[in-house]
Amino acid sequence: MQLITQVDALLNGLSIVTRAIAPRSARAILEGVLMEASENELILTCSDGSMTITTSIDAQVKESGRAVVPGRLINDLVRKLPGGDVSIKVSDSGRATVQCLASRSNLNAMNADEFPEMADEITGESVEMKQVTLKNMISRTVFAIATDESRQILTGCLFERDGAEIRMVALDGFRLALQVSREGKEGDKPIKAVIPGRVLNEMSRILPDSEDPCTLVFDKGHMNASFGRSRISSVLLAGEYIDYHRILPTTFGTEALVNRTEVANAIDRASLMAREGKNNLIRMKFSEDNLEITSNAEMGDVREEMTAAVNGAPIEIAFNAKYLNDVIRALSDDEMCMKLNTSVSPCVIVPKEGGEYLYLVLPVRVFQ
Amino acid sequence: MQLITQVDALLNGLSIVTRAIAPRSARAILEGVLMEASENELILTCSDGSMTITTSIDAQVKESGRAVVPGRLINDLVRKLPGGDVSIKVSDSGRATVQCLASRSNLNAMNADEFPEMADEITGESVEMKQVTLKNMISRTVFAIATDESRQILTGCLFERDGAEIRMVALDGFRLALQVSREGKEGDKPIKAVIPGRVLNEMSRILPDSEDPCTLVFDKGHMNASFGRSRISSVLLAGEYIDYHRILPTTFGTEALVNRTEVANAIDRASLMAREGKNNLIRMKFSEDNLEITSNAEMGDVREEMTAAVNGAPIEIAFNAKYLNDVIRALSDDEMCMKLNTSVSPCVIVPKEGGEYLYLVLPVRVFQ
Repeated sequence: MQLITQVDALLNGLSIVTRAIAPRSARAILEGVLMEASENELILTCSDGSMTITTSIDAQVKESGRAVVPGRLINDLVRKLPGGDVSIKVSDSGRATVQCLASRSNLNAMNADEFPEMADEITGESVEMKQVTLKNMISRTVFAIATDESRQILTGCLFERDGAEIRMVALDGFRLALQVSREGKEGDKPIKAVIPGRVLNEMSRILPDSEDPCTLVFDKGHMNASFGRSRISSVLLAGEYIDYHRILPTTFGTEALVNRTEVANAIDRASLMAREGKNNLIRMKFSEDNLEITSNAEMGDVREEMTAAVNGAPIEIAFNAKYLNDVIRALSDDEMCMKLNTSVSPCVIVPKEGGEYLYLVLPVRVFQ
Repeated sequence: MQLITQVDALLNGLSIVTRAIAPRSARAILEGVLMEASENELILTCSDGSMTITTSIDAQVKESGRAVVPGRLINDLVRKLPGGDVSIKVSDSGRATVQCLASRSNLNAMNADEFPEMADEITGESVEMKQVTLKNMISRTVFAIATDESRQILTGCLFERDGAEIRMVALDGFRLALQVSREGKEGDKPIKAVIPGRVLNEMSRILPDSEDPCTLVFDKGHMNASFGRSRISSVLLAGEYIDYHRILPTTFGTEALVNRTEVANAIDRASLMAREGKNNLIRMKFSEDNLEITSNAEMGDVREEMTAAVNGAPIEIAFNAKYLNDVIRALSDDEMCMKLNTSVSPCVIVPKEGGEYLYLVLPVRVFQ
């Protein structure tokens, strides 16, 4: 195998695919990047056994071939190359030489035949949506997945198509995050698939903020996401996801329209005191035209006040500051609507208008 | 105590003085910041018992007084305030109220009388130099101090005045860093003082890149550094510093003038392979007009080549990559001169011209 390509293109490709390398891999071959040179293209692939990322870059291929080279090492090395042309040559004895100007590295290559076969194109229901839409839906829900492996199905996000609506849902028993896109079409067949959190996290990092399309294909146990010259394949989490519709309250005694940035800054300051306490607790008191946010600890207390358009009964309620913070940081609207019933029932956060998102946060019981 | 000041000024002051707070303090009072309001000024002081940092900011003082408030907490809080005016009021009951617009925090204050007395102005030899000169001399030597507490004197830098020359020296048994300034005057009395590394690290972070003067005063066991409205006081390390002049070689068999950036980039890449090995080793081979830098590990090898103006005998020598890297990053010149004798004797790095710095690095024995 012998080829010439550009340092920038190679670095871009390597930094995409090496995200699939597990922090600690059980098999040496999975610490490598599979390089496949043919025609005018170099195809790069990494895998952790359950997730595989592949991408391709332009190359002048002088001799086609396949080899597996140490993944993190070549990624770090290419990042530090001076730029311009870089040549890669793999000898029959399994020595990969990377040369760029007066810098020459020899890396011990591994046998490409030992690299796990990339799942072939799968057939099943497919979804097309904008890359940026998918990226945002992921980053605005995935923080709410369970980190506790004891309920494995909750360590992923539910991807659901229901008519023209595409939804992504995460929940961990304390909060729920739901994002909705209407990029589906009426009559599309329903899809329900639970994608592992790790896959979604890497996907949201790799996906560009582009209006270009990406295609997701699902079969019973697998998913393929293709965009540009890249593809991410993964197994799906097995099992039945919680019927989340049943836990969403539909009527509310109090509805408050608040300025998101003002609430964010107030919670930021109140959190400083809350984290000195044991349970990171902040209290919110909604009364007519007013929202008061307080926290206290042995060291003192913080009190923040702001105007709020409150409809319904006044209410006091307490939250883990982190859960509210996560929601507020996932949003970009100026205003958000908080809907409540009692100090021990969930708070629902939705946009002022439209239904692109819904967050639910359970309160902490502190009031009698 | 009651006053009004600006959020920006208060934040600036707090972020300077809170650097003196130890990561973990044995006494609660040392986690606080002493606030002293009088006339049109608020004086802020923090101390870890051996290092004390104090600074002052403008304030409209309505009622003078003293109080100690939780240091990190108020620093974090002020960082998140919206800006503009902030009022601080400490009640007789020991409650400090920080108010900025609709944000109000109460912090439990501590008794100012329990705060350790700031060392009074000390009398002794004094040195005046530019703030930026001191800052650079520190940051270009302090990385070479010993981290091992077993030879405590080496965990600080030697500050030495010898006629018109002011020198700062650090060494740890494997390398030595020396910076020279000629901002002293002929006839100035000699000074030898060993300043603790932690004090120097904080000092280099606080000192601005300014041509304004700073004044250092030394007595037998203490140091005061004053610049702008700030002062850092510290105990000195006790004991006799190594007579470093005796370990500096004066004649060399080989002298090479190299491009610093080229060597830096080559070492960067070679280090990637070196760190895969056990001892982070890079090899340098100086021959006429040429420098070759190599490293190897089980995974492969890296070879870098560059032109170099080599005078004297060809030589091969090996170093711990970190030690060379530290030196190269501390410098800003385009070129540097490496002086060598044998593969088992120290390498000295000096500027092409002038004697503002000298670094010495011991090689690793790998050649017969």
